[in-house]
Amino acid sequence: MQILVAKKIGFCFGVKRAIELAYQTLEKSKSENSPLVFTLGPIVHNPQVVRQLEKDGIITINDLKEIKKGYLLIRTHGVPPLVLSDAENKGLTIIDATCPLVQRIHKIVTNLKKENYQIIIIGHKDHPEVVGIAGYAGKDHQVIEKIEDLEKIKLDKKLGIVGQTTLFIDNFQKIVLNLIEKAYECRIYNTICFETQARQKATLDLAKEVDLMLVVGGKNSSNTKRLLEICKELNTPVYLIEGAKDLKFSWFNLKKKIGLTAGASTPIRITQEVLKKIKNNK
Amino acid sequence: MQILVAKKIGFCFGVKRAIELAYQTLEKSKSENSPLVFTLGPIVHNPQVVRQLEKDGIITINDLKEIKKGYLLIRTHGVPPLVLSDAENKGLTIIDATCPLVQRIHKIVTNLKKENYQIIIIGHKDHPEVVGIAGYAGKDHQVIEKIEDLEKIKLDKKLGIVGQTTLFIDNFQKIVLNLIEKAYECRIYNTICFETQARQKATLDLAKEVDLMLVVGGKNSSNTKRLLEICKELNTPVYLIEGAKDLKFSWFNLKKKIGLTAGASTPIRITQEVLKKIKNNK
Repeated sequence: MQILVAKKIGFCFGVKRAIELAYQTLEKSKSENSPLVFTLGPIVHNPQVVRQLEKDGIITINDLKEIKKGYLLIRTHGVPPLVLSDAENKGLTIIDATCPLVQRIHKIVTNLKKENYQIIIIGHKDHPEVVGIAGYAGKDHQVIEKIEDLEKIKLDKKLGIVGQTTLFIDNFQKIVLNLIEKAYECRIYNTICFETQARQKATLDLAKEVDLMLVVGGKNSSNTKRLLEICKELNTPVYLIEGAKDLKFSWFNLKKKIGLTAGASTPIRITQEVLKKIKNNK
Repeated sequence: MQILVAKKIGFCFGVKRAIELAYQTLEKSKSENSPLVFTLGPIVHNPQVVRQLEKDGIITINDLKEIKKGYLLIRTHGVPPLVLSDAENKGLTIIDATCPLVQRIHKIVTNLKKENYQIIIIGHKDHPEVVGIAGYAGKDHQVIEKIEDLEKIKLDKKLGIVGQTTLFIDNFQKIVLNLIEKAYECRIYNTICFETQARQKATLDLAKEVDLMLVVGGKNSSNTKRLLEICKELNTPVYLIEGAKDLKFSWFNLKKKIGLTAGASTPIRITQEVLKKIKNNK
């Protein structure tokens, strides 16, 4: 049995930056009589990373009401501006680990709003990244996940269109195509992350030549779930695992080539552990 | 044999307006010791309309150098701004019969240019409408006719995109789709004429239920040629005729249902003559 690893694995630059910021903040806190360091929701969508950070002293909260003072790390996915102002009003020290590509979307949306565009966000309504963007997008914004959503919504003449960073470009394009027909002006920003696209492409290439794919990553991670979908669309058998412990060797019966890929917030160590466990058991 | 007429025939509002302006100008000229009335190129792309206007006293020229004074009617397709300023400098009285939907494109392009967008015109390079728009679009503009053209051109990060008014929306969308992937921002104006779209839809509906289609209109008329293409794509046998004289009755052998449609600059009288001739000969 041969094991092939996708050309693009390991943390993306946004995740790397967030984790570095987290540890810098922990260091700083230690040098300042240890005020507490919090994140509102998981800083990235990977259970091992979050567990490690918690072990090292970072506390995950679900509501600002739970805390009174300390450092507040903003997750890579970003938050609505109201959350930022609430945190400021409470006197928390904000460390913004929002991915710079998501920050860019916040800026685009803020500017488009000033110029009276109705904001259309293409993405998954309940995903924290989309919830964050929506906070900048004004009352009349719309979130569109699939073509059918277009039938239910009221569109203005001037649309400002952005997409969740982890979308498939094809899905983004398909929805944009429909919007162009309906509006007088569409101002479209291709906000899909270049690293996400490279990762999707690497996964697609690999999934074409193997008998089975393994996707290593958080089950709540949007970009990881897209990698899973890519393999499914190619009809390549595929399993999403969070680490070596989830492996089942029965999956490999009669398989000759196994492909391994990983989400943008999956530590390279976790992927290596998976690789090692497969190799040791073959 | 049954003859069905498309739901949308007769002049579009832009052609109607241009012809009215032409006759108003002729009247005015008569009341003012008859200065000459010119058009630079045919005012619309229909031979009968142009012939009638010439009979009534309007002179078609091909170059401003041919004339010294008088009224200059600007064709429905518009002209580059340089032509307008040349005509003004010569002291000609300009009567602008540019279709308001084309004027709108000139305004959009002018504004986009001010905001440093690279202008992309989707349309037919040599068509006078596109030549006119290109005159407003700055040196770095690009005209794209088909997907393959995209490989040859250099694109900026910020694109301002407009389309020729008589395009198929599908073609416009397909090219836009490709541009979205390549640029940081695409500011897209759906500039396809609503009357053109209604006429294309009516032709499509009719072509689906008949054995043969007749398209009445100028052979140099862009919107008329699109109607021809629609029928061809459906594999419905189709002929483009400029009037009753072009009819060949051999076309109707064994045909049960004939469909009749017409371009936006085809006088209703010409379509009626075609209809009459078929009816009288069946």
